[in-house]
Parts: sequence; C-alpha cells; structure tokens
Amino acid sequence: MSRFFSKKFSALTPYTPGEQPRDKKYIKLNTNESPFPPSPGVIRAVLEEAATLQLYSDPECTVLINKLAEVYGAEPERIIATNGSDEVLDFAFNAFCDKENPIVFPDITYGFYSVFAEKLGIPYEEIPLKDDLTVDVNDYIGINKNIVIANPNAPTGIALPLSDIERIVASNPDNVVIIDEAYVDFGGESAVKLTEKYGNLLVVQTFSKSRSLAGARLGFAIGSKELISDLHTLRYSTNPYNVNRMTCAAGYAALTENGYYMQNAQTVMRTREFAKAELEKRGFTVLPSKANFLFAKSGEISGEELYLELKELGVLVRHFKKERIKDYCRITVGTAMEMKKLLDNIDIILEKRT
Amino acid sequence: MSRFFSKKFSALTPYTPGEQPRDKKYIKLNTNESPFPPSPGVIRAVLEEAATLQLYSDPECTVLINKLAEVYGAEPERIIATNGSDEVLDFAFNAFCDKENPIVFPDITYGFYSVFAEKLGIPYEEIPLKDDLTVDVNDYIGINKNIVIANPNAPTGIALPLSDIERIVASNPDNVVIIDEAYVDFGGESAVKLTEKYGNLLVVQTFSKSRSLAGARLGFAIGSKELISDLHTLRYSTNPYNVNRMTCAAGYAALTENGYYMQNAQTVMRTREFAKAELEKRGFTVLPSKANFLFAKSGEISGEELYLELKELGVLVRHFKKERIKDYCRITVGTAMEMKKLLDNIDIILEKRT
Repeated sequence: MSRFFSKKFSALTPYTPGEQPRDKKYIKLNTNESPFPPSPGVIRAVLEEAATLQLYSDPECTVLINKLAEVYGAEPERIIATNGSDEVLDFAFNAFCDKENPIVFPDITYGFYSVFAEKLGIPYEEIPLKDDLTVDVNDYIGINKNIVIANPNAPTGIALPLSDIERIVASNPDNVVIIDEAYVDFGGESAVKLTEKYGNLLVVQTFSKSRSLAGARLGFAIGSKELISDLHTLRYSTNPYNVNRMTCAAGYAALTENGYYMQNAQTVMRTREFAKAELEKRGFTVLPSKANFLFAKSGEISGEELYLELKELGVLVRHFKKERIKDYCRITVGTAMEMKKLLDNIDIILEKRT
Repeated sequence: MSRFFSKKFSALTPYTPGEQPRDKKYIKLNTNESPFPPSPGVIRAVLEEAATLQLYSDPECTVLINKLAEVYGAEPERIIATNGSDEVLDFAFNAFCDKENPIVFPDITYGFYSVFAEKLGIPYEEIPLKDDLTVDVNDYIGINKNIVIANPNAPTGIALPLSDIERIVASNPDNVVIIDEAYVDFGGESAVKLTEKYGNLLVVQTFSKSRSLAGARLGFAIGSKELISDLHTLRYSTNPYNVNRMTCAAGYAALTENGYYMQNAQTVMRTREFAKAELEKRGFTVLPSKANFLFAKSGEISGEELYLELKELGVLVRHFKKERIKDYCRITVGTAMEMKKLLDNIDIILEKRT
C-alpha cells in the first residue's frame, strides 16, 4: 500500500479469482467456464472486427442491445451491456445503495458482493442460509433493504423457484432487488419476464458461462427503463466505451447462434447429473445443482485435502475456506471425459486412504 | 432517473463521447482515432484467442505486462493494464483522492476529469490555462493537492516539456501527480522515466491513439510499485478480469510490431504539420500541436458553424461549447487524403460566405 492510498480503502480486501496456475496442464474445473468453444460465427465476427480496431466501439452497443432485446423480449432501453457482469453489479451497487440504503445478501454466495459493498462504503448484512444451504425466502420478505441474490446461488448451485423471487421483489417495492442469473441457463427459471411488472427488479446475466465467452467479458442487465438509465449514467461517468468492438460483435454472433449454446447447456446438465450420481456412489454429499458446477463434500476427506490432492493429480477444483462450507469443493461440470478423469482421480485419492 | 438512484448522484452529468452518427458515411475526424489499421500480428493474435474465449482471461495479464515492461523499461510490478485508459484514470482518482485530498487540473482539458471527480465525490479545482491556452506551470508548483495533467493537453494539443513536468512532480512530494499521456507518441516527451525517481508520479497511456486499438480498449499506467499496487487493489475489488483475452493478445502483438505504429505516428505528425500550414493559409489560428489532432479557429466562421457545415458536407470534427474554446474546432489528423478533403470542404464553406 502506498502512503497516498485513500483511508477509505485501508481495510479493503479485494476479491480472489480462481487460481490459474501455469506450471503444468490442468483439467480446469475451478472457474465454471464452459467446456465448449465459441460457435463459428463468433470467430468470424471477431476476425471481422479485428481489421477495424483503430475505431472506437459504439458506446451504445446498438446492434448487440437490439439483438438482446429480441432474444429476451425486452425493449432496448431496458438493457445495458457491460465488461463482464461484475461491472454491471458494481454499477448497480453504486447506483442504488449508499449509507442510508444498505444491501443484504446470503452469507454463502458470490464472494464479490461483500467486496463491492466494502469498496463502495455501503453497509451490508449477510443473512445466513438455512442448515441445508438453501435460501430462506422468508428472511427477505418485506425487509425494506436492497437485496442481491444469485439464482441459482453460488457456490451451492441451488435455485429458488420464480414464485419465491416474485414474492421477494413484490414485498420490497421501495428497494431494488438484484437477481444475479449468471448460471440460469443450466436449469434455473429466469426472472427477466418479471422486469415488465416490477420497476424495482434488476436481472443480471453473463455470456461467461452458457455462452462460452468468459474470455471476452460480456455481461448485461435487464430492468425498468429508469433503473437501466441510472446504470447508463454511471457507465457514461466511468467508461463509456466499456464493451470493446470484438466483444460486442462476439456477443451478437453468439445470440444469432443461440441454439448451439442452449444445446451445450443441456449437455452440461446431463453431465452434471451423471457426475452427481457418481460422486454420491462414492459417498459424497452433493447439493442439488441448477448450475454448471457441483458443490460436494466427502465423508472421508476434507474439502481442502481433496482440493490439494486433486491439484497434485492435475485436476483443479475450487475450495473456499469459509467455515460453513469448508468441507465442500466446488467442481465445474466439464466434458463427460473430464468428469470421468475427475472421478478416476477421486477413486485414486480415496483408495489411498483406506 | 429512477426513484432508487442514490442521492449522491443527483447532480451527476456524465461524459459525452464524440458523436458516431450512422445516417451516412463520414470522414471521421472527431474522436482522435488512428487512420491506420492494426498491424497483421494483431489480427492473427485476435483470431487465435477467439477459439478459446470460453476460458477467462489472465487477471494478471502476465504476458502483456511483461512485454510492456520490456518496451517501457519498467518492472512488471510497476505497470497495470486496464479496459482503456479511462478505467485506470477512474481507479487513480478513486485510490488517491477523497474529501480530504482534492485534485486540480486545467480548466481546459480532457472533459472526463471533472466527471470522475463529481462521480466519486472528490473536491476539485480547475486552474485556468493562460490566455494562449498553455498551462502555467507555476500554478502547480508546491500546490499540495493531487494533480492530473494531460500532456500533450487535450483539446489544445499543446505539450509541456519534461523539465516542467518534473518541477511539478518534485514540488508536490506528498501528493500524487497523474500525467495522462494519451497523445505522447505524436511528438511529446514521456515522463515514464521519471517514475523511477518519483514515487508520487503516475503516468497513464493508451493503445487507442498511436497503436490503432481504440476499439479494443487497452490502457495502462506506470508508477511506483506502491501506487500500482493500490490500483490493483481497486481493480481486484471492481473487475479482476477487466482486460479480455483478445485485447490482451492484441496489445502484446502490437508491442512486438511497435515499429509499424511508431512509423504511423511519424506519418501523422507530418500530415499534421501539412494540415496546420494549409489551415493557416486559410486564415485559421492553429495551436502548436504535439498530438494527433489540431485545435483551430477561423476568423470568418464560428466554431459551431464550421462544425455543423462540415458535418453537412460529410466531415465530422469536434466542437466544444465551453466559453473559452467555443471558437475552435478539434480536428483529428487523418490520412493525407482525408485532410485534403477536409481542406477542400473548408474552401467550399468559406467561399460561400464571401
């Protein structure tokens, strides 16, 4: 830290992204990436943009936004595109929360929410999940604070039904409810339709998971015209050209080939259920996941040991040291072959211990 | 504005980027883009990355940062890469300024500085340029406030010599001095070398101008290890994957073909001097520019009229309504052919008036 760093950040602990070790080739099941490459149209679109990179991108992302509007059935002025969904979450926390308007979220969820709140000086409260690691919807009814809920939740993978989301949104009309749907395409129910009815609902999604564009950085949010307009005000006061030309074009192309991605999501869901059953055969407790990952704990080996031993064997999964979930590992659902290798390695690890 | 928008932003006026009308094909001399396309290696690098976009980018941008370190002669830990230089400016304002640590900058400069300050709630002071629109260095000596100076300045194009920058930096040891060198490759003197000596100096640059990557969004900053570490803390608390895979690879490739870009910068400088002389022949006052644009005013037509009439004829230049500079237009230096068309159109406009 320099002696010039503002005191407001003296206690700030940044987010830790999943590790990306380069010492050898790993089976990467630690950052919830898609095991499928982008579609051919994406490659073509990117190549075409590459030749004109000397020109700024369209700050309004007009072509992309219009296509999102078509695919998601929302007017263009109710949609904003950002440099990954982290950026739109940051804008939303900043736009709608302040000292007088705190935010609440589950104690076990995407680790970035508390970092945004700390950085922005926003008071926040973490509401404990139930013992089974599900969200207790009643905790959020009429709470009269801003709310952010990942649905499906991470790292549990557990989803709330849309009816529960609607109850939360409807019972907090004077606060903004952010539903982070990064993983919704793997079996969850999207709340996008509800944004027509509720002016206090903001739905955030990403191209990083189901649409194989983690490396391109593209997120978006859908809400009322007024909420989105506030986010644009912040965007134009921060980084008006936040989405680069290549990513804009890649996102548009991906939406025109949406069938490919939705089929891949189906494949991931099938592989997930296969892997879940296999882990259970091996004595694991596996939470019911509607995401592209499994949250699993073994009765025989601690979460940290499993993570470390798998890493030793060339398989990366993610372990969190947080007390309530330290027995678990979060395992991204890769290809069937990758999951088979994971299971083989788990067999080797468990075998050694008996 | 929604009723949920935080009161802290009720007076926020966002930055206005240069217009990008799509009603017809324009000669675009309004956003200081390079008239030259990216080099072949950039296209190849982007294409290669496109195939693996399902994977997150390296949050440390290791390969790019190491190459920047080599080209700029600074240790990797003294460099940060961002989604355009606006992002690193935003981080720097946020990191080093607060209610107790205001910032100062010229009254005529990059319009985003005041927007960052307004958004972040940072007190700021605009120090008037001299009547000839140059920075009075004495205004900044021992001022004991954080400082940001664009060098060369925008939209004037006028550069300060390195000795003046050093005087400012040396005389404010307890404050951060940010030198924004977006246009430095067109004849200015970079302060990067001074970052070895002064721990309070942060130099910001971009790939948007001389390196033909405006549409890829890549900025970077060089400073002391400690300053850069603070900026990383904010980056990891905002958007750890802020630079996407394609842009990272494009930036690296551009640096390996640096000769092409530096030669293009020389061409732009020659074209600039040609265009300046031609404008002067037509009665314009043209400020001495070390950037890839000219700031010029005619004795015969107002800045706004010239802008509007040129637009009508298919040439976009930029006009600012700010009182002190409303007689001027900022004209990007394009190709020799584009400047010829600009001059022909100016002849048509001036002819009509006589």
